[in-house]
Amino acid sequence: MKSIPFTQVTLTDQFWAPRQATNREVTIPSQHEIMRRTGRVGLWNWALKPNEFNPPHRFWDSDVGKWVEAASYSLATHYDAVLDAQVDAIANHISRAQLPDGYFNSHYQNVKPHLCWSNLRDDHELYCAGHLIEAAVAHHAATGKRTLLDAMIRFADHIEQKFGRGAGQWRGYCGHPEIELALIRLGQHTGEQRYIKLAQYFVDERGQLPHYYDFEARRRGHDPRDYWAKTYEYVQAHKPVRQQTEVTGHAVRGVYLYSAMADLAALNHDTELLHINETLWAHLVRKRMYLTTGIGTSAHNEGYTSDYDLPDETAYAETCAAIGLIFWAQRMFHMTRDGQYTDMIERALYNGFLSGISLDGTEYFYENPLASRGPHRRQAWFDCACCPPNIARLLASLGGYFYSADGDSGVWVHLYAQSNAKLQVAGAEVQISQTTNYPWDGAIQLAITPNQPTHFAINLRIPAWCDLSDDDAVTLTINQSKIENLKAKIQKGYVCIDREWHAGDVVTLNLAMPVQTMYAHPHARHMLGRAALQRGPVVYTFEQVDHPEIDAAKAAAAKGGAANAPLMLDRIALGKATLQPEHRPDFLGGVTVLRGNGWLADDADWEHTLYRPNPLQRRKIELTAVPYCVWANRAPGEMRVWMRL
Amino acid sequence: MKSIPFTQVTLTDQFWAPRQATNREVTIPSQHEIMRRTGRVGLWNWALKPNEFNPPHRFWDSDVGKWVEAASYSLATHYDAVLDAQVDAIANHISRAQLPDGYFNSHYQNVKPHLCWSNLRDDHELYCAGHLIEAAVAHHAATGKRTLLDAMIRFADHIEQKFGRGAGQWRGYCGHPEIELALIRLGQHTGEQRYIKLAQYFVDERGQLPHYYDFEARRRGHDPRDYWAKTYEYVQAHKPVRQQTEVTGHAVRGVYLYSAMADLAALNHDTELLHINETLWAHLVRKRMYLTTGIGTSAHNEGYTSDYDLPDETAYAETCAAIGLIFWAQRMFHMTRDGQYTDMIERALYNGFLSGISLDGTEYFYENPLASRGPHRRQAWFDCACCPPNIARLLASLGGYFYSADGDSGVWVHLYAQSNAKLQVAGAEVQISQTTNYPWDGAIQLAITPNQPTHFAINLRIPAWCDLSDDDAVTLTINQSKIENLKAKIQKGYVCIDREWHAGDVVTLNLAMPVQTMYAHPHARHMLGRAALQRGPVVYTFEQVDHPEIDAAKAAAAKGGAANAPLMLDRIALGKATLQPEHRPDFLGGVTVLRGNGWLADDADWEHTLYRPNPLQRRKIELTAVPYCVWANRAPGEMRVWMRL
Repeated sequence: MKSIPFTQVTLTDQFWAPRQATNREVTIPSQHEIMRRTGRVGLWNWALKPNEFNPPHRFWDSDVGKWVEAASYSLATHYDAVLDAQVDAIANHISRAQLPDGYFNSHYQNVKPHLCWSNLRDDHELYCAGHLIEAAVAHHAATGKRTLLDAMIRFADHIEQKFGRGAGQWRGYCGHPEIELALIRLGQHTGEQRYIKLAQYFVDERGQLPHYYDFEARRRGHDPRDYWAKTYEYVQAHKPVRQQTEVTGHAVRGVYLYSAMADLAALNHDTELLHINETLWAHLVRKRMYLTTGIGTSAHNEGYTSDYDLPDETAYAETCAAIGLIFWAQRMFHMTRDGQYTDMIERALYNGFLSGISLDGTEYFYENPLASRGPHRRQAWFDCACCPPNIARLLASLGGYFYSADGDSGVWVHLYAQSNAKLQVAGAEVQISQTTNYPWDGAIQLAITPNQPTHFAINLRIPAWCDLSDDDAVTLTINQSKIENLKAKIQKGYVCIDREWHAGDVVTLNLAMPVQTMYAHPHARHMLGRAALQRGPVVYTFEQVDHPEIDAAKAAAAKGGAANAPLMLDRIALGKATLQPEHRPDFLGGVTVLRGNGWLADDADWEHTLYRPNPLQRRKIELTAVPYCVWANRAPGEMRVWMRL
Repeated sequence: MKSIPFTQVTLTDQFWAPRQATNREVTIPSQHEIMRRTGRVGLWNWALKPNEFNPPHRFWDSDVGKWVEAASYSLATHYDAVLDAQVDAIANHISRAQLPDGYFNSHYQNVKPHLCWSNLRDDHELYCAGHLIEAAVAHHAATGKRTLLDAMIRFADHIEQKFGRGAGQWRGYCGHPEIELALIRLGQHTGEQRYIKLAQYFVDERGQLPHYYDFEARRRGHDPRDYWAKTYEYVQAHKPVRQQTEVTGHAVRGVYLYSAMADLAALNHDTELLHINETLWAHLVRKRMYLTTGIGTSAHNEGYTSDYDLPDETAYAETCAAIGLIFWAQRMFHMTRDGQYTDMIERALYNGFLSGISLDGTEYFYENPLASRGPHRRQAWFDCACCPPNIARLLASLGGYFYSADGDSGVWVHLYAQSNAKLQVAGAEVQISQTTNYPWDGAIQLAITPNQPTHFAINLRIPAWCDLSDDDAVTLTINQSKIENLKAKIQKGYVCIDREWHAGDVVTLNLAMPVQTMYAHPHARHMLGRAALQRGPVVYTFEQVDHPEIDAAKAAAAKGGAANAPLMLDRIALGKATLQPEHRPDFLGGVTVLRGNGWLADDADWEHTLYRPNPLQRRKIELTAVPYCVWANRAPGEMRVWMRL
């Protein structure tokens, strides 16, 4: 079972297609300009002035790699000569700057060339290599050009020589997983199994004793106990991966590692490794994930703390972690055919991923908290700029998450949006056209057009947000003929329609989209006594800018110290009021907002009192909730997802 | 108007008298032993080995000073030859170690003698001097011995020469106020007005421009902008004190400064300064104080953040700040005769002050948060050990907060507890014996015994916690004759009984003590949707150890990372249930607990779910609340004052 590539899926909807156009027309060109201005690309003259002028940072190659990957995806669907030349210049630079033995790292080569591979724990050389390898594969696939691919094959061969269990080899592995994913991809692209074996080595060696990072630290003259992170949980190397049962440490590192583990489980039919992946996944989604799919609670380790510790204002929830979660989920689905994974792709895309970029495509969130007092705003760039090009590469390849096909017999439809797809199944060429206003409306028409009448199965995802206790939650018709007893036919989140398809067949799926009031597990104390609103896959949030009462109170309170001014949105309680959807095509790029009444804790009679034995009075006010993914696109102010009840 | 000294008030109650006995028999001796073991007293041999072995810390002299003050108070009421000798040894050491010019500071003399007075902003020399001066006055008053007093007079004279606005003098003042209070006390004790004038100088010079701390930093070769605290608000020197309208910065520094300002306002009949004090007080109690009287929100600056920013788990609420608040409140009362100040003394004593020491008198809280996940426990000592001897000196002199007298005409009764007091008023010797089980019972009998029939006023405080909207909240009888229309007679928190008193007169005050559910200002977001329980002056809290459901859940959750384990007590909601008092004489030193039913958010049906659209189920459980001041005297575990509703 494989995904249908993004090149075969064209989005024409009002939600994603404009985002993809902005990504192509604004984001990717502006990122190149920032990379040029900051020295990541363009002059390549760091070597002339090491330690003096703008030496390349140890993450830079990964930024460049992710951008090349994004640009290559964009070239694959929308050729652009300027972009093509920009990518070529980077490929040529890397090919020229690469050492004769295949090694390439802008930071080490220019800042500390004598120390290559001396600190795998912290210094990201293999991580950077991985992103360049992924870029090389994407560039070759999109353009057929081999400059970067050949350079990266040389680099991969160098890595294969350097690391492993053979005589004279180092038994290292990268502190930040990524090389594993990249080598598997390179192996699949080139047909060279040895790259996949090297990835397998990196995964298997992780966390073995004696510990490589202990050895490596001592070789540098350091005491391993002085490691700033205190624990190898930070890099998921606290124990061998097959002994890991809980998601720990740095969230992005984790999901990249688990994605590679899932790849290897699939390639090797390794059910033990699959089971470990399932255990880790269950731990993550049941105990350590925000409603928006944000993962990683704490800024301290950009990662996890403990079960059910999910503070909203200080949530880290890095955009890259949502992206890595999507990678992992897609791989898990392909092994298990279980909709819980594709449900999570949908939830991440509409919430914790998309919040990472502004509507105009020029500013980014690194952290995606679920509440803010106001100062948290998207930035044009970061010193450690992992998120911006990661967003760009996912948006440019988004279509690749819509469909999967098992060549012989079936198609899986994971995501819904107005779009056209071409795929091959059971020997036929099949077009699937979706007509829908999803995610604002749950009515979806799929026109199925095989080039000849063909028998195969179409598996439609019935999202987990559908409340199947409601009899009208889902209806399905095929050419006007309603499928009866539908709920019983849903298996692992999909309903299977196995028949002979003819051109002109139309499947109509209707998903009821009530506003849902969501509650969290009672051990998640930050959400106790609170609720969040959701409609379909979209999580909503409340912004100060839509609530004049809060705006006024906030301005008054700001006198007492703006940075710590109280989160006035907490004065609002949802009560039992139900908010109603209202579509506003000209607002925030065209979104459905939720509107209704709530309750404001009244401060009118509190002027001289801080504590008193009489309960608070409250008064009715109008509430507006906007999709979480578009918050912070207007005037700065407070934001909160989880409201008091 | 003056306080009746603690030497004339003997507590015989079940609440404070045992605490005072423990203070005398355990705390004061054990603190001497710790000071000996840590090198603060005893060997005095740091000078032999500077920078090598245990050099005296810059706060040490203040620890010793506060302990000598506590020991002197104890000697004044309960002579003890061992203690007397310990104090003498300290007095002799200081007198011998003092420099010929009067200077004394163990840290500077032994660690960096060439740098004396070079860093008033940070280094506490004048602060240490202040505590030693207070100790000297207390020691002289208690024992008549002049060794320490004479040494400290020499030191004060040296300070007077060094600092001021005269030619050749330095215009400095201490970063940590205390010297001002001490000099006023020394002036009052010796009759030397010039010490009071010096205190006045220190207060008036504070925050003037050009700024002394800028000058001083540059003299040390530092850039003033490198000040770690970023702002002179930290030391209340961001502007001259007469321009200050908000409490800012380090909480203990603040209340010590405001206490000195109140002293000066009273001594100089300075209504402007009084008004400034009133403004600062109102700001503090209306916007920046915890229910327990804890002040200082943040560990970062051991002080204030912004209005209504009162997080409970991270509350700093230093014990010393509650003590300084009591000092300030007493001074404010004497100027204004307003019960809001003595109300605050009572509230601080029963809550934010007393929580600072364990029932056995050997362990202390520096910080007094209003919630804890478990690890917060009292410690035997601290590197910066300001709180332990501060607690000891207040407990040893507690009787001094019970009564005030205006020599000619009236007595004010501020606090209630079984006790005997002797005082002079209107030319008569008067004994006042209180018979009561306060704070557990609001019935108070005061037997008034003048040595001859005498006309004077007795002013009884009617606590602010009395809910005067209840007709039965307060009743007052004099010799069985009930005072009618009592509420109308209460002025600024006191009811005045102005009559000729005869031996055998009995005043009976009955204060109804219902359990009160307290709510916080709606801008105080950490308490929104929450309530706290209070009965009389006692604030209650909930501990894990009394709630087996929480204990079990906590143990189960601890597997996921104990340090960050969720605050399970948040799973409990008070609902509308009313808890009832139950006195338990053998529990926690004899306390009234509150018992009743509450609601536990049930986790039984949540095993595989983190978020869902169905509200939480809850089940009834038994709740026990204990007085906040005695929490953490049993098994470690969670604690929370503000419970969900």
